[in-house]
Amino acid sequence: MVSINHMKLAIAEAREASQMGEVPVGAVIVNSVNGAVLSSHGNRVESYKDPTAHAEILALREAARLMQTPRLKNCDIYVTLEPCAMCAKAISLARIRRLYFATEDRKGGGVENGSRVFSHKSCNHKPEIYVGIREEESQDLLRKFFKERR
Amino acid sequence: MVSINHMKLAIAEAREASQMGEVPVGAVIVNSVNGAVLSSHGNRVESYKDPTAHAEILALREAARLMQTPRLKNCDIYVTLEPCAMCAKAISLARIRRLYFATEDRKGGGVENGSRVFSHKSCNHKPEIYVGIREEESQDLLRKFFKERR
Repeated sequence: MVSINHMKLAIAEAREASQMGEVPVGAVIVNSVNGAVLSSHGNRVESYKDPTAHAEILALREAARLMQTPRLKNCDIYVTLEPCAMCAKAISLARIRRLYFATEDRKGGGVENGSRVFSHKSCNHKPEIYVGIREEESQDLLRKFFKERR
Repeated sequence: MVSINHMKLAIAEAREASQMGEVPVGAVIVNSVNGAVLSSHGNRVESYKDPTAHAEILALREAARLMQTPRLKNCDIYVTLEPCAMCAKAISLARIRRLYFATEDRKGGGVENGSRVFSHKSCNHKPEIYVGIREEESQDLLRKFFKERR
């Protein structure tokens, strides 16, 4: 079942990222068996000086470290923005059960937009996808962030 | 200019990965200004228990750490196998100048196959792509690895 609170935590991570000058995106990984939050992270590309330090990648790595396996079979991910192709493929490689995201990313997204990573025959694992949870809060954060920088 | 030796190093990384029970893929990142190798890595998904620990991601993170920036503008990457969508998008995000890969990956590749990450309008940065350097050596390693496991 979708948890509004897990997306609330992802939004809080996005807000914290924004305060650090990072594009406001947050991700939370939950063990669907017991509902426990395994990891939650905001975007850290600039602070970590790491092109791969998107919120989803950091959260996936942390959850895999905790579970001591690269395959997070019973886990769900909550993200405040449609994952890019890098993160979408990472979600597939990690065998994530469900992907919840708050709002679409027409420019940078790789799920419903751009390279549509899960829609190719060669994609071995496709999570169930749910869109639109706390959409306005995520959009507000992104709009505010980019407005301040233009 | 393409360096056969850089791909040779990538092949050596792939071979080492294979000896650890990892899918034999290796990646090397080179500063194109002075030809210096910044990082070289093999696949470590199983050993690190990290779904994102593909050779390319590990090499990109290490090079970015050394260069103290997430944007590796004057750098080239040598990979023994066509990058998957995760790694292709990471290469784009890192602003890598040139991508050299030894052989195509019809099943898992995301450059010439599958989600063709660089071919979408929304892809902000597309490296120059060169294919087929030391192709047979890479194919031999992969064939041997999968044959022993079937």
